[in-house]
Amino acid sequence: MSDVQIVEVGPRDGFQSVGPIIPTEKKVEILQALYATGVRRVEATSFVSKAAVPQLADAPEILMAADKLDGLDAQVLVPTARQAERAITAGARHLVFVLSVSEQHNMSNVRRSTTESIDEYAAIMRMLPQSGKMRINIATAFDCPFEGRLEPKQTLSVLQQLIGLETPHEIALCDTTGRVTPDHVDALFVEALEKFPEIQNWAFHAHDTYGLGTANTLAAWNSGIRIFDASVAGLGGCPFAPGATGNVATEDLVWMFEGMGVSSGIDLNALLAVARDVAALPGAQTGGRVRDAMAQKLITPNRS
Amino acid sequence: MSDVQIVEVGPRDGFQSVGPIIPTEKKVEILQALYATGVRRVEATSFVSKAAVPQLADAPEILMAADKLDGLDAQVLVPTARQAERAITAGARHLVFVLSVSEQHNMSNVRRSTTESIDEYAAIMRMLPQSGKMRINIATAFDCPFEGRLEPKQTLSVLQQLIGLETPHEIALCDTTGRVTPDHVDALFVEALEKFPEIQNWAFHAHDTYGLGTANTLAAWNSGIRIFDASVAGLGGCPFAPGATGNVATEDLVWMFEGMGVSSGIDLNALLAVARDVAALPGAQTGGRVRDAMAQKLITPNRS
Repeated sequence: MSDVQIVEVGPRDGFQSVGPIIPTEKKVEILQALYATGVRRVEATSFVSKAAVPQLADAPEILMAADKLDGLDAQVLVPTARQAERAITAGARHLVFVLSVSEQHNMSNVRRSTTESIDEYAAIMRMLPQSGKMRINIATAFDCPFEGRLEPKQTLSVLQQLIGLETPHEIALCDTTGRVTPDHVDALFVEALEKFPEIQNWAFHAHDTYGLGTANTLAAWNSGIRIFDASVAGLGGCPFAPGATGNVATEDLVWMFEGMGVSSGIDLNALLAVARDVAALPGAQTGGRVRDAMAQKLITPNRS
Repeated sequence: MSDVQIVEVGPRDGFQSVGPIIPTEKKVEILQALYATGVRRVEATSFVSKAAVPQLADAPEILMAADKLDGLDAQVLVPTARQAERAITAGARHLVFVLSVSEQHNMSNVRRSTTESIDEYAAIMRMLPQSGKMRINIATAFDCPFEGRLEPKQTLSVLQQLIGLETPHEIALCDTTGRVTPDHVDALFVEALEKFPEIQNWAFHAHDTYGLGTANTLAAWNSGIRIFDASVAGLGGCPFAPGATGNVATEDLVWMFEGMGVSSGIDLNALLAVARDVAALPGAQTGGRVRDAMAQKLITPNRS
């Protein structure tokens, strides 16, 4: 058992940002390689409009491949009830529903008001099989590219509405822009955990765009969070910002937690090999530090 | 008054790592530009063997230029009593003496045993003018490139020996390799602050090589530390590791602290202009994220 649970979101959040279509076999190979490093939770793909995100048009095949890996908890992201239905039909049992606290961001992301998305959530919960699990990803939980800083009370109000309808299995608060600072991460989690004791699982989704991916993850850890999203090789970059990095790199989190004596269940050296493979994908925008640092091999990694 | 004190070490730790000699006038221009952003503490240069570090052969001129900037606290690094004498003769009143906890690192850095360096410290304290201030930089306080992890008790023992001789004005614990994790930063500072209440000022010197520059700084902040070294544009890179980043970037720390409502006294936008200039120096190895993120301008930095 690991002391911290890292959810590898590269196959969804990462691949989605890559322009050139990655062959399905290559995606499956990476998924299997990640599994071999010890990864046991993955955001495998997203059921979305093929026209909007052609890179993820192979969602059913990817889900099928993920389900063959024994003990792998493969979640898939769905933005609407219609896509949730598609995912469930394809065999998905762990859904991730995404909505934004920011009206403007939600509109731009899923062409719905936040209230409409909350209704979609209720509809999806009604169609979820008995054995199914639902995670909610709260986008712009701290900060919005359009509206700037969001106050904890705005995010708590959206959570209140969602939880009032139906209790999800897990809630992830997402720093969509990478602009949150550790004090804000701490403040929101502390309040949310206190206000909603019925939520069993809380997760934090960090971006490293402003260099605070690990610092914010540490702040969430200190607030009691034990589930963290991360993307192998830091794959993610924002399509609107060439050169800007996206998700915090999985290898950076594994490095930090293992160094703190917190077991992640993931073999860092094996993960670095996958990270180098992923970083070599045409069109990949990568981030993180540990990959480069370990590549130099100047320093014997004697941490004992 | 700022709530956090950032010591800009780019002109010493950063420049020292740059191969091509930076003209003295350019160094002075950067120093003045940093001052104009609000920087009030700087590690201006180092008095070292010109043969060993030709880049810093202009130490006396740099010190003279720094002293012309009203209210700027310009410290200079000295590795030996002989160089301290040179610095004092040149007018230096704020010295930084560096020694390593690790015998092997100290030998490789200054060709002396740690015990010999402690004797040098005593000799320097005797020659320090009444108005002078002494900072001690404890290199490899957490981790050594040769010996790996160093236990807090090893570092505390060296501190005990130094403080037993004479109380310095300030002590900086330095993560020389960038491999320390936040738990270790916290553990050592908590113990050091408790054990040596006579030390008025403690500082932390972070490297970002493994992506933990901001996370470790946050850990030290949470342990009560209020003085942090950082290098503009993350200038620093290790000469033995092309591509590996060095010091945590000043702009990343300013971004983090200001976002936390902690005033640094430094104007971020003005600093970013200097950071871009520094990053353009031939041979510069840079780091940090905020410089790239802000260059994209995709996100209106509305943080209010």
